[in-house]
Amino acid sequence: MAKTSNLVRPHGGGDLNPLMPQGDALASARAHAESLPKLPITSRESGDLIMLGIGGFTPLTGFMGQADWQGVVDDMRTADGLFWPIPITLSADEAVEPGTELALFDEERDTIMGTITVSESYQIDKAHECREVFKTEDDAHPGVKMVMAQKAWNVAGDVVVLSQGGFPEEYGEQFMTPAQTRAEFEKRGWNTIAAFQTRNPMHRSHEYLAKVALEVLDGVLIHSLLGKLKPGDIPADVRSNAIGTLIDNYFKPNTVIQAGYPLDMRYAGPREALLHAVFRQNYGCSHLIVGRDHAGVGDYYGPFDAHGIFDEIGEDALETQPLKMDWTFWCNDCNSMASMKTCPSDDHDRLLLSGSKLRKLLSEDEPVPENFSRPEVLEILSKHYAGIETADRVTVELKGHSAR
Amino acid sequence: MAKTSNLVRPHGGGDLNPLMPQGDALASARAHAESLPKLPITSRESGDLIMLGIGGFTPLTGFMGQADWQGVVDDMRTADGLFWPIPITLSADEAVEPGTELALFDEERDTIMGTITVSESYQIDKAHECREVFKTEDDAHPGVKMVMAQKAWNVAGDVVVLSQGGFPEEYGEQFMTPAQTRAEFEKRGWNTIAAFQTRNPMHRSHEYLAKVALEVLDGVLIHSLLGKLKPGDIPADVRSNAIGTLIDNYFKPNTVIQAGYPLDMRYAGPREALLHAVFRQNYGCSHLIVGRDHAGVGDYYGPFDAHGIFDEIGEDALETQPLKMDWTFWCNDCNSMASMKTCPSDDHDRLLLSGSKLRKLLSEDEPVPENFSRPEVLEILSKHYAGIETADRVTVELKGHSAR
Repeated sequence: MAKTSNLVRPHGGGDLNPLMPQGDALASARAHAESLPKLPITSRESGDLIMLGIGGFTPLTGFMGQADWQGVVDDMRTADGLFWPIPITLSADEAVEPGTELALFDEERDTIMGTITVSESYQIDKAHECREVFKTEDDAHPGVKMVMAQKAWNVAGDVVVLSQGGFPEEYGEQFMTPAQTRAEFEKRGWNTIAAFQTRNPMHRSHEYLAKVALEVLDGVLIHSLLGKLKPGDIPADVRSNAIGTLIDNYFKPNTVIQAGYPLDMRYAGPREALLHAVFRQNYGCSHLIVGRDHAGVGDYYGPFDAHGIFDEIGEDALETQPLKMDWTFWCNDCNSMASMKTCPSDDHDRLLLSGSKLRKLLSEDEPVPENFSRPEVLEILSKHYAGIETADRVTVELKGHSAR
Repeated sequence: MAKTSNLVRPHGGGDLNPLMPQGDALASARAHAESLPKLPITSRESGDLIMLGIGGFTPLTGFMGQADWQGVVDDMRTADGLFWPIPITLSADEAVEPGTELALFDEERDTIMGTITVSESYQIDKAHECREVFKTEDDAHPGVKMVMAQKAWNVAGDVVVLSQGGFPEEYGEQFMTPAQTRAEFEKRGWNTIAAFQTRNPMHRSHEYLAKVALEVLDGVLIHSLLGKLKPGDIPADVRSNAIGTLIDNYFKPNTVIQAGYPLDMRYAGPREALLHAVFRQNYGCSHLIVGRDHAGVGDYYGPFDAHGIFDEIGEDALETQPLKMDWTFWCNDCNSMASMKTCPSDDHDRLLLSGSKLRKLLSEDEPVPENFSRPEVLEILSKHYAGIETADRVTVELKGHSAR
């Protein structure tokens, strides 16, 4: 008897569509790629390509053409009407003849990541994309900066993906594909799963968000961004270690899975929250935890803009639903974790610590207030900061990607 | 411009259908009822009638006939296919000629509660109803006992409801009709509301259930049963006071509403959990918190049978969804509230106190462990127990309804 999955369906309602061939087909596709002209690609494009390769961007078949770009930017729909909140595009210095096959070359990795069969080249109003997607044209916004730095032409077409960019080697079992998380959920008998998006270690406020989700659903996928971050963020290996320790000590076995995905942050706030939900649907998650200032940066977005946008997209857009939650913290007066929604008084003694304040305390080896974070987690973070000499620390703040 | 409600629709998909006339129509219906032969009704039947009167049992129009009884008992569907999990029936010593109009007389209240136009009389296999609805024929089960004590005939027909049984006078604003809770939710801008079913005061474990719901929804309706309970339960006025104190001190304004509904407990466990969801849909609640042994008594039901049954009823059965939660408690090792799902170790130092153990501590003026309950709540309960002399206490344990 065929087993029917109770998980949410992949985005678009069909099967997962991973664009990376396996076995002999992969070997011959790689050999073929060596013979093609190379198009250099950026880190963001590389992450998007890997996501296409593992089926995380199902049902897309490659980088978007002009009609899809326009529809996605203006209405969050491709030309075919598929819900998609952020353009997935590839740029080049020059237009490319339709039908041309190119090898997509990641210079940082010194690797051909995939091939594209070009269907069209087109030029975009980058400022328009930024206004619609990021709600700002400010070049200080890291996502805007990436878009404005794109080359003059967008090149569209179906892709064949040839590499996972070293993520499986670097992160081992934590680098799970959508097919793998789905298989794991089914093995565990989970039907309802919340994805917890993170690019940081988890303190008690984050533990609380995950536990609230666990109280009402079957499981939680702690799903870390493994691609590039902005300067000053905790390196991925330290973060992964800190989260693993938290899970081992403070979560019940068989309730949480830690995994990662290959994208770079775009910091598009509300629009990126929607993208986070789209690809979590492919990973099999019925819910996405959306907290305060989800995927935001600086003051570009209202703290709950990423909540509101889920009410504007139409009921057919997504099967994966947001679990909208407020700012969470330990409250000494409540003697419990709470949020702005559940802590009754503004006068209450709440532990609210910014990321930069925490970094300052840890790097100066000052005590972190009790109940802000679990001691086992703080120990790992303290060791990380102790391992960075002052001079290096400044470099890390500027460079940001010390771990990769 | 007509305002569209974002609340769940009343059960059956139409409008609320309260069966109690208003104003002059009520006065003349009452005068008419005085001229009719009287049929005495039980406390449970009286509660069901009031619920029909205020629209809580929408779309029912009266007490069920044989085809509906059979369908509801066997398949949880009326003859028309409407989802309904527990028969709503009226019994009499003798069959009644179809077309006869009777006054439904509550002897305890000495009041005509409504009138029925009899459509049919039929006899049922009471033991069959008990096996299907209560999963037992054991006469020690209080719900079984009620069914087995019904008179020889079931009398069906549409009703006109003439009284709210004194609930508005006794409970004031806390006795809200479905139309009133819906209006209040809309006034507050709430779309997603969890009903918290209770027949007891709330300790920290219950506060935690409500707060978990609040973290992910707009509001919580703490919805107390105001009808009859089994012996030993805390009287409704003490409970209401204790819950009010908890809300005032530990919940944020505009997040919780305390209200009550007029039914007696049936203790039908899983089937009653479904009935709780059906009428909460009429009250406008998108969710029902379903905890451990919901609406159970003794050892008749598995602790999570009331979770599982929601998976068996078909997607069209209910708009109101269960928020399934595990056994909750304070854990000293976690230094937080937790549940069997979120507390990681079986060795943890958990505060688990049975209702009877708590009653014993309170009535003997022994200290209740810290973090089991809020001090303001314990103070009210202690006063209640201190006010009961030992001899009275025994009476209360036996009689059970001291407050009404």
